[in-house]
Amino acid sequence: MSLPLSGIKVVDLTRILSGPFCTMLLGDMGADVVKIEAPGEGDPIRGQGTIQNGLSTYFAGFNRNKRSVCLDLRTQDGLRQLNQLLSKADVLVENFRPGVLDKMGLSAERLEAINPKLIVASINGYGSTGPNSQRPAFDFIAQAMSGFMSLNGTASDSPLRTGIPISDLVAGLYCAFGIVNALRARDTTGKGQRVEAAMVDSLMSMFAWYASDFLATGDAPVRSGNDHPITAPYGLFPANDGAIAVAPSTEGVLQRFLKVIGASSLLDDPRFSTNQKRMEHRSELNALISVYTAQYSQAHWVTLLNDAGVPCGVVQPLSEAFQSPQTVHQQMVIDVPHGNHGTVKMLGFPVKLSATPCRIRYPAPSHGQHNAEVFDDWQLDYLPHTSGATS
Amino acid sequence: MSLPLSGIKVVDLTRILSGPFCTMLLGDMGADVVKIEAPGEGDPIRGQGTIQNGLSTYFAGFNRNKRSVCLDLRTQDGLRQLNQLLSKADVLVENFRPGVLDKMGLSAERLEAINPKLIVASINGYGSTGPNSQRPAFDFIAQAMSGFMSLNGTASDSPLRTGIPISDLVAGLYCAFGIVNALRARDTTGKGQRVEAAMVDSLMSMFAWYASDFLATGDAPVRSGNDHPITAPYGLFPANDGAIAVAPSTEGVLQRFLKVIGASSLLDDPRFSTNQKRMEHRSELNALISVYTAQYSQAHWVTLLNDAGVPCGVVQPLSEAFQSPQTVHQQMVIDVPHGNHGTVKMLGFPVKLSATPCRIRYPAPSHGQHNAEVFDDWQLDYLPHTSGATS
Repeated sequence: MSLPLSGIKVVDLTRILSGPFCTMLLGDMGADVVKIEAPGEGDPIRGQGTIQNGLSTYFAGFNRNKRSVCLDLRTQDGLRQLNQLLSKADVLVENFRPGVLDKMGLSAERLEAINPKLIVASINGYGSTGPNSQRPAFDFIAQAMSGFMSLNGTASDSPLRTGIPISDLVAGLYCAFGIVNALRARDTTGKGQRVEAAMVDSLMSMFAWYASDFLATGDAPVRSGNDHPITAPYGLFPANDGAIAVAPSTEGVLQRFLKVIGASSLLDDPRFSTNQKRMEHRSELNALISVYTAQYSQAHWVTLLNDAGVPCGVVQPLSEAFQSPQTVHQQMVIDVPHGNHGTVKMLGFPVKLSATPCRIRYPAPSHGQHNAEVFDDWQLDYLPHTSGATS
Repeated sequence: MSLPLSGIKVVDLTRILSGPFCTMLLGDMGADVVKIEAPGEGDPIRGQGTIQNGLSTYFAGFNRNKRSVCLDLRTQDGLRQLNQLLSKADVLVENFRPGVLDKMGLSAERLEAINPKLIVASINGYGSTGPNSQRPAFDFIAQAMSGFMSLNGTASDSPLRTGIPISDLVAGLYCAFGIVNALRARDTTGKGQRVEAAMVDSLMSMFAWYASDFLATGDAPVRSGNDHPITAPYGLFPANDGAIAVAPSTEGVLQRFLKVIGASSLLDDPRFSTNQKRMEHRSELNALISVYTAQYSQAHWVTLLNDAGVPCGVVQPLSEAFQSPQTVHQQMVIDVPHGNHGTVKMLGFPVKLSATPCRIRYPAPSHGQHNAEVFDDWQLDYLPHTSGATS
């Protein structure tokens, strides 16, 4: 069965995280992703995270649906082999520091000469030009520089990074979106182009009303922890066996929330009669509401409140989130056999397409596993004898 | 100049945030996005955020490059008009609760009958089927249920939501990626299909090593605030005028960091000789490093450390992040004229395409501004006389 990107050849020079995530998304959609790895350790992620039967499960999760070709790009031989692959490719993806591709002899002009239809996609920290472009990129620094950290945490504490490497992944996803758009443009123009996503820009683009309010008023937003900056009540409330998260976003939803918990009379209290007053008396209101919610269990409230149209959930640790019936139903955790390394559990596919669903075509490759196969498939007869391929 | 999605007609039934963000991304890439709004207030976002000269800047920022058609979908007339638009469209995007489209008479079978080439894209909280599918969706709840909150914050404090509505925006971006892929599949098959992205799944897909480590070991990860769970030193350190963020991710980068600040000798201390020992003595090590970093300014360290290849930045509030020379260089804040409403500052385009760059083709529309124009452009002669259009 054909997939959306079937037949699209991707030369993948990326390593670590943002780039491999981008090319995984392309591979999941059916692209023929050829991961170029240096002799020796290859992608450093191969040595990171939990190692299971000799395989990094972190590497496995981000490099499914790819094939691996080992090339030594510090040698003329390796570069010639890369150029051969590029002459046949539709897309090149890289996440080097800006300028490294040029130093490898792959300037924009040279790439245009090798293959005018090639889409050249880059993920970087700040952009490929500009005053910060040469700084080394790192998720934590992008979280700090973008303003994200200034919005995460509570007002009384230090600005806080979030644990997940959100700027890497959002930039990788944006780049994948840009690449598929560039392929579509190429259907019309017949020509490739450059695609770029920067980690800082990508994170900024997710600031929603914080961005629009700041740009309109110049007032810096305040970190508000689990409180909503412009709505009360809202947040975590105690049940008798843990907390529930409740988000009554409108007056109507709030009325339903209070009715379900038996606290409708709170709105008769002059301290709580309007949203503005409720925000001024937030802690008193939350304390009163907690008396009601603390009488029953999380499950009780989650069912009753959602049935009444009040968004409600619990803070699930990964053990609960990944094993919940809904997660199982959505196939968001999948088992992928990896030969001698056993079966690796990994995240499923977040985008569901009904007619051409993403699927595992290849498990994550061993280092250099597909040198011969790829050169053969791409009808290149220049076999890399000196590449240090391990198979 | 043609854009990647030029000529693609999108009927946009979405409101609030995740859906409008998705269709904005399509519009930025050139699609003809027709935002369907109910008579009355239309998209509730029109009344939210900072209102500038009668226009919500929050609405403006998320609804650029769209046209607005006002239809009353509670009437047979309105539904007939919608069906006419759908018969000509390439894509339908909606973020209703699952099942609402069916109740409007737009079941999968009916949509297939109206237009077999139509791509039907949905963004929802949990998925369109499964035990949680009928729960109302809300970003805060998706942050709680996905496991994101269990990873955000510090171990000593409560799990923390992040301020920005990250699950809305990531799901919107995934859906846009899915739609462009479905368009590509349609080029081959001639048929539309369903595309779906759920907020909980989308956020889960960003957990990187937290997911792979948990799925391999079953050990729940710990919230680590600004500390890195498997590296030390790492985090915020004092300069003499504020904090710097430093991320030495490898032994080599760490050595360069300590050399630049003049603290190389710390590695001779047996407490700090390996990463494992440094994590065990993290607070002592951080205190000693702080003595060195506190001697000079943020700007001093940011320049010296980045020049030495050590990722370093500062926690910028939005005022600094949005006005920094790099942000200006990247055109991540743009000025968009909105007629009588004046010029609105909004976020720029995070994906840069060199040959077909995103641009503003339309500012955010007034409510029902394009009823006549869209029906005319799409060669539909059924003009909506009863729709309550405001222009």
